[in-house]
Amino acid sequence: MSTPTETSQDEKIVLAHGGGGELTRRLVAERIMPKLGNKLLNPLTDSAVLTTNKGQISFTTDAYVVQPLEFPGGDIGRLAVCGTVNDLAVMGAFPKVISLALVIEEGLSLSVLDRIVDSIADAAKEAEVIVATGDTKVIEHRQGDGMTITTAGVGEMLEGIELSTERITPGDVIIVTGNIADHGLAVMSAREGLAFETELESDVAPLNHLIGGMLKQGAELKFLRDPTRGGLAGVLADLAEDTGYSVEIEEDKIPVSRIARHTAELLGLDVLTVANEGKCVAVVSEHDADRVLKTCCEHRYGKNAAVIGRITESAPPLVELITRSGGRRLVQRPYGEELPRIC
Amino acid sequence: MSTPTETSQDEKIVLAHGGGGELTRRLVAERIMPKLGNKLLNPLTDSAVLTTNKGQISFTTDAYVVQPLEFPGGDIGRLAVCGTVNDLAVMGAFPKVISLALVIEEGLSLSVLDRIVDSIADAAKEAEVIVATGDTKVIEHRQGDGMTITTAGVGEMLEGIELSTERITPGDVIIVTGNIADHGLAVMSAREGLAFETELESDVAPLNHLIGGMLKQGAELKFLRDPTRGGLAGVLADLAEDTGYSVEIEEDKIPVSRIARHTAELLGLDVLTVANEGKCVAVVSEHDADRVLKTCCEHRYGKNAAVIGRITESAPPLVELITRSGGRRLVQRPYGEELPRIC
Repeated sequence: MSTPTETSQDEKIVLAHGGGGELTRRLVAERIMPKLGNKLLNPLTDSAVLTTNKGQISFTTDAYVVQPLEFPGGDIGRLAVCGTVNDLAVMGAFPKVISLALVIEEGLSLSVLDRIVDSIADAAKEAEVIVATGDTKVIEHRQGDGMTITTAGVGEMLEGIELSTERITPGDVIIVTGNIADHGLAVMSAREGLAFETELESDVAPLNHLIGGMLKQGAELKFLRDPTRGGLAGVLADLAEDTGYSVEIEEDKIPVSRIARHTAELLGLDVLTVANEGKCVAVVSEHDADRVLKTCCEHRYGKNAAVIGRITESAPPLVELITRSGGRRLVQRPYGEELPRIC
Repeated sequence: MSTPTETSQDEKIVLAHGGGGELTRRLVAERIMPKLGNKLLNPLTDSAVLTTNKGQISFTTDAYVVQPLEFPGGDIGRLAVCGTVNDLAVMGAFPKVISLALVIEEGLSLSVLDRIVDSIADAAKEAEVIVATGDTKVIEHRQGDGMTITTAGVGEMLEGIELSTERITPGDVIIVTGNIADHGLAVMSAREGLAFETELESDVAPLNHLIGGMLKQGAELKFLRDPTRGGLAGVLADLAEDTGYSVEIEEDKIPVSRIARHTAELLGLDVLTVANEGKCVAVVSEHDADRVLKTCCEHRYGKNAAVIGRITESAPPLVELITRSGGRRLVQRPYGEELPRIC
């Protein structure tokens, strides 16, 4: 008979541990936080805000393992820059510098590397961040086209911004800054070689200028998050859990392109749980919703922004989708990994 | 007949591109810097020093791909924390926070992960740094025991410290803070299953307290570097290149343990090019050498510190080793990767 300890020693990492769903949450909560937890790490927000003797800065990191390395609308290089820039921006920080660590598989074509480095340079220029430090390692040949990139970023906290789920109250409005699910579906359809892959493009983009515009107009903005792994469903599940309030969203208000909807159906995926890399979810006071929405729509990366729902008082705290037909269904955090290696 | 461009497109990454030697230098100089170069990145120092509106901070990153994950004297977790802490410390910064990005292969035993996370926690506690932010990704099964860790770190620049190769002049003295080559040889012998592997342990350690002590005593300290990939030879080659002066070191003054020397001979390696993870090379004015050496020797990680040579005026700028028998030989930067995946 095995003891619980022995059982636990036999357990192994599975792909779903990295999917951004319930299994990832548990891995981090049960195996990492008890040992590494501290005041800065505990909130598990997109970036940490730290007070040095130089003032407040924001600090974040993300590892990118997307396959294929190049996909319609972007590549791993653009993804790595934008992901880190966006994690800083949603915390109310102005991204300043990023680090760039490349782990390359032996056998990678130097011309692929060149294109990815070009893409990193372009994205950094667009986001106006500087690649300040880096590292390059090479590991043995495996599939011959492998590369992972880890970026970290430092931003300066904008003055007078107070983003906190604690400020959220029933009646607050939920905005998403444009069409959802494009990134995950574009990567997946490129991987599967689907016929329509050329039409669907990843939304990967640096959102710091869009978010800067939203923050600077003085609206009562309470929360920002980029719905990457776990998608919109993951962010809304976090919102319900963190605030203790429910979230109600309306299916026909959620911006999704025709082609994305079609692709999701073909792949058997729920657009709500698919990753985005150029979108932001905002919670804002009802009286400021129009103003924030207008700012979004004026920006190239916020054109299709929409109010998709609101915070409600119904208990227990759940996320509910009002379907096109007027029915209601529960929206849940994805359990494991629906789309492996999409970011 | 192929044009140069076509030839270049056929080129592929080889393991030696990641070894920290001449090929790594060329990859970075020819393929990355022309596109990403900027005032902060160009010096290619261990960390970037950036001035924000909050003052000066230091920022660094490193990717760790060591195999095996656990080796005598340490593991990939301790390595990742210490490497980043040391990169900040040698720039004259006080490490404050680190980020932790784990890329885990499916199939990794959770008990191995647990031990590595414990080790990260212990090393962070010892170095007095906080793991402020992190990310976890999982990739497909390959060898079943794989994991890479990328850490980035932010430190506060210590006031009044002026480390710069521009201050170095002939007559300055070179100090190494202890026995060299232990890390690379310990990892390599663990990998090869050599009989004496239990005797040789990696020197992986956080050096911020040792270095802090050296910096705070007001000595005329001009340069600090931790000789990781490329070893002592790599650091000295950089010194000659950056200063335009020659470097002369004496073989019988370089601290190397008997077991390390023996292992290096068995493996056919030069201890000068083997990586260290708990040592520091310092250049100091001759009149302050004894004082700095004494401070080192009083610290647990600096016990075997020694003056190993000096900066000389001989042209052209080269690194020369005076051998035990009184002969002279040139010390060169290793070309590729003598020891793959040691850090």
